[in-house]
Amino acid sequence: MSSTEVRTQRLETGTSLIPTLPGSYYTDPEIFEREKSRIFQRNWFAAARSTDLPEPGSFRAVDVGGESVLIVRGRDRKLRAFLNVCRHRGARLCMADSGSVRRSLQCPYHAWTYGLDGSLIAAPNLSSMNDVNRDEYGLVGVALREWLGAVWVCLAEEPPSFTDTVQAAVTARLGDAGMIEEWGIDELVVGRRITYDVKANWKLIVENFMECYHCATIHPELTEVLPEFAEGYAAQYFVGHGAEFGEEIEGFTVDGRPGFDRIDGVDDEHDRRYYAITINPQVFINLVPDHVIFHRMYPKAADRTVIECDWLYTKDVVDSGADLSKSVELFHRVNQQDFDACERCQPAMSSKAYVDGGVLVPSEHHIGEFRDWVVRALAD
Amino acid sequence: MSSTEVRTQRLETGTSLIPTLPGSYYTDPEIFEREKSRIFQRNWFAAARSTDLPEPGSFRAVDVGGESVLIVRGRDRKLRAFLNVCRHRGARLCMADSGSVRRSLQCPYHAWTYGLDGSLIAAPNLSSMNDVNRDEYGLVGVALREWLGAVWVCLAEEPPSFTDTVQAAVTARLGDAGMIEEWGIDELVVGRRITYDVKANWKLIVENFMECYHCATIHPELTEVLPEFAEGYAAQYFVGHGAEFGEEIEGFTVDGRPGFDRIDGVDDEHDRRYYAITINPQVFINLVPDHVIFHRMYPKAADRTVIECDWLYTKDVVDSGADLSKSVELFHRVNQQDFDACERCQPAMSSKAYVDGGVLVPSEHHIGEFRDWVVRALAD
Amino acid sequence: MSSTEVRTQRLETGTSLIPTLPGSYYTDPEIFEREKSRIFQRNWFAAARSTDLPEPGSFRAVDVGGESVLIVRGRDRKLRAFLNVCRHRGARLCMADSGSVRRSLQCPYHAWTYGLDGSLIAAPNLSSMNDVNRDEYGLVGVALREWLGAVWVCLAEEPPSFTDTVQAAVTARLGDAGMIEEWGIDELVVGRRITYDVKANWKLIVENFMECYHCATIHPELTEVLPEFAEGYAAQYFVGHGAEFGEEIEGFTVDGRPGFDRIDGVDDEHDRRYYAITINPQVFINLVPDHVIFHRMYPKAADRTVIECDWLYTKDVVDSGADLSKSVELFHRVNQQDFDACERCQPAMSSKAYVDGGVLVPSEHHIGEFRDWVVRALAD
Repeated sequence: MSSTEVRTQRLETGTSLIPTLPGSYYTDPEIFEREKSRIFQRNWFAAARSTDLPEPGSFRAVDVGGESVLIVRGRDRKLRAFLNVCRHRGARLCMADSGSVRRSLQCPYHAWTYGLDGSLIAAPNLSSMNDVNRDEYGLVGVALREWLGAVWVCLAEEPPSFTDTVQAAVTARLGDAGMIEEWGIDELVVGRRITYDVKANWKLIVENFMECYHCATIHPELTEVLPEFAEGYAAQYFVGHGAEFGEEIEGFTVDGRPGFDRIDGVDDEHDRRYYAITINPQVFINLVPDHVIFHRMYPKAADRTVIECDWLYTKDVVDSGADLSKSVELFHRVNQQDFDACERCQPAMSSKAYVDGGVLVPSEHHIGEFRDWVVRALAD
Repeated sequence: MSSTEVRTQRLETGTSLIPTLPGSYYTDPEIFEREKSRIFQRNWFAAARSTDLPEPGSFRAVDVGGESVLIVRGRDRKLRAFLNVCRHRGARLCMADSGSVRRSLQCPYHAWTYGLDGSLIAAPNLSSMNDVNRDEYGLVGVALREWLGAVWVCLAEEPPSFTDTVQAAVTARLGDAGMIEEWGIDELVVGRRITYDVKANWKLIVENFMECYHCATIHPELTEVLPEFAEGYAAQYFVGHGAEFGEEIEGFTVDGRPGFDRIDGVDDEHDRRYYAITINPQVFINLVPDHVIFHRMYPKAADRTVIECDWLYTKDVVDSGADLSKSVELFHRVNQQDFDACERCQPAMSSKAYVDGGVLVPSEHHIGEFRDWVVRALAD
Repeated sequence: MSSTEVRTQRLETGTSLIPTLPGSYYTDPEIFEREKSRIFQRNWFAAARSTDLPEPGSFRAVDVGGESVLIVRGRDRKLRAFLNVCRHRGARLCMADSGSVRRSLQCPYHAWTYGLDGSLIAAPNLSSMNDVNRDEYGLVGVALREWLGAVWVCLAEEPPSFTDTVQAAVTARLGDAGMIEEWGIDELVVGRRITYDVKANWKLIVENFMECYHCATIHPELTEVLPEFAEGYAAQYFVGHGAEFGEEIEGFTVDGRPGFDRIDGVDDEHDRRYYAITINPQVFINLVPDHVIFHRMYPKAADRTVIECDWLYTKDVVDSGADLSKSVELFHRVNQQDFDACERCQPAMSSKAYVDGGVLVPSEHHIGEFRDWVVRALAD
């Protein structure tokens, strides 16, 4: 049992506890299958960072809701995405997670050859391509957008509006459509990437990220840096709110010592503050004055989620070879603490005690919006 | 092929072979799910030994038909059982199989805190507990009884009568309601505990335990000690029958040499005899003059069962530091021989040859009662 | 990306691409279950080589469509097959894949004893067998044929005509019912056996074997020996066609150097040629002048197949202790290249891009016959 001391405070009377999702939503393989098709394949999904594909011919194969999506940078330097499947007999075009090709993607089974734009350009013994419509047998395209330095793809035939979904989520949280541009995220550089393999349903991870009622119990380093988090209210609870650094805190680091120079463009009123954004269904963004922490989740099974977390700094900081460890360590610990908590919840989701789910206390009520979003998405 | 010599004897004519359960009962995951809810969660289940929880604050988390049940000894030294799930957001309260806490069970996620009696005593930011009914958000209780030194729990909202089920099974076997008290099992001490992880359906293990038609083939040591077992009739075939030790046998040990002093209270007419009791669905008790062997099964999947087996001796024997190995070795070998046989049957349960099951010979006919009990329990 | 050079040739115009099976046929566990009962248990299945069971009492336990089939050589030297399940309580009679017994098969659980002809000959305590019909409780028999040195079994109660299925497939390919006898396959000896465990559906392996459109891309050694394979037409595309060795090629070896003497009986017009035969659902036979390569597939799951491949030579060659490695190496590489390709296709079978399957180019059109055979077999 944890010996953590938690201050118990008098709050309002009339406390109401509203329900979470039922336990089956976190364990049922059929619901997970439905989530793959109705949520992860229908919404914009941050699949990679644009700089992960530096050159013409660079590729990444990414699991998007169970589908292998191949992202390739063309000779024209544009990024495009395709299903990673040869149209002939179904061989995977690229087995590696990443790599690079020269001018084309050639299937290693029968040598059907595709341009970096996905068009079928050659097939042995089928030079008379009059009869084989190149477009008909080109790679299956996937919608792609770049924003905040991320590559967003959408498997839907008619993707939802990027503005009304991804960008609207950021605006709704920050209360200001332009504010996030202050960080110039697409100009930042990956200082550190850590991948976590978590034995928990992706929704437990979203719900954990959305609330700070657990902060006092499991995040001693974070509440030291952001004292208001000990009160249990997440920055996300309020529109536009950034949690303020403690008085003695000099930077967003594991020991509160100075981090790096404030990113050019970040406004004075956003200095010494921490902002957190959830973009459904699989992105978390954390903004602090000198860096950005960007999480992308890859759901693998009802009880397993892989998370890639990037710590992003200015090119100057990274090029200088400065020691990032104190800076990275703070949120790496937060991640480990959170994912441990989620793994602790997962096995109980199938309990009789959780058939109707648990409850949300007032400082968690905004999780109810996520719950309703999931239920609506699955009903479609 | 085994070269075991088996004496084949002329029995009665008119031999009838009655059917076992169909093969699917041992392999179908849906039937196993139904067994979890209709059998293991509705009947009294021996989950631990009372002495496994020696002090106030001692706990055990036990898998009862797929549900993690937390057994805790209170400050009042009473044992209580709860579902091992926080009522707030569903975190497992105790991840370890056993351990101890001080005065309360605190959830390590958001610090909801429960008394050892299961009541909710504190939750951060919810000190105004007028509005949050403590009883409503206390841990979900599970019925608990202690008998024969074992902790029996039942997940049913209305548990069946303990007397009419557990105790009646013992009486039916021994033919005498009080006889088992002669062994004073709750005063005995665990001399040795061995856990077996068996790749077989739990019912194969019950059926194996119930009959002795296999004894001549697979239990050379046991039939040496109990010569009548070579005839193929289990002690369980007859009400009140104890299999008699062979003439030259001095104790229930692997080589027939002396064991320990007869337990005070065991009657002369029960000396030099072996009694076996099956308590549906998951307990086997073996009584010999100087010790008791107590098996608890934990079914894990249609094709996997964990068995905890305790060798129980008087406190004097255990405290003396006497060598238990000859005594333990006999039934440990029997266990291994039996579980090997069960693992050998499991893969054939899905054969076309076993679609309608196999057959029971006359000395196995009492297995038919178990078969009928299972069918009735699943039909409810 | 492979850098293999593939010559692209002008073919006819009017190229048509016909569909393969839909992706679900290669991934759906329910379809695989149906294949086990409708295809592998209803057709003749090459389960072993007769010489694998050299003596009376020799046995093999083989997985035939999920069922363990026990093949035993009797005292009369005849081979017989049974379900590997004791009729009493369902124990596996033989757990080992192969071995030998003396005069009987005795179940190691309760010692029921069967003759090598499957009849029940003894059961402890049931000597009065008047009442227990020995035939009724004999082992469940499985149909068995020997041909081409292979042991073919069929689990159907009424097996299809061996002539109209297995033998007809050979005749249809070679265009001559007697031609295969030239190789005297039942007199050949296993020079080398290699077992491959392939993470792909069995139908991907059949389809791969049937076509040579992939040869130029993935089989450099094979196309060196058989230059016409670079054109993309499999020997199987034409009735009776044997692919001719290249002019400089001296034998069917990895470097084209001489192999062994032509097998007595192989006609001049079949010398310096390679013939390939597919016998649905799980046998491939490759004939070259000095040896025979015989593949038997054992499907294990929708995405896993085990293949046993025998390289068969005359007794003289094997007895001479000659170095077989150059000879074996050629088709071992072909196997590895093919199975790698199949494993590359398997993960893409569940892609949206393959929901309706892929396409067959003209040189693959005969795969359409296999596709139709599968669909008809599953519909029955």
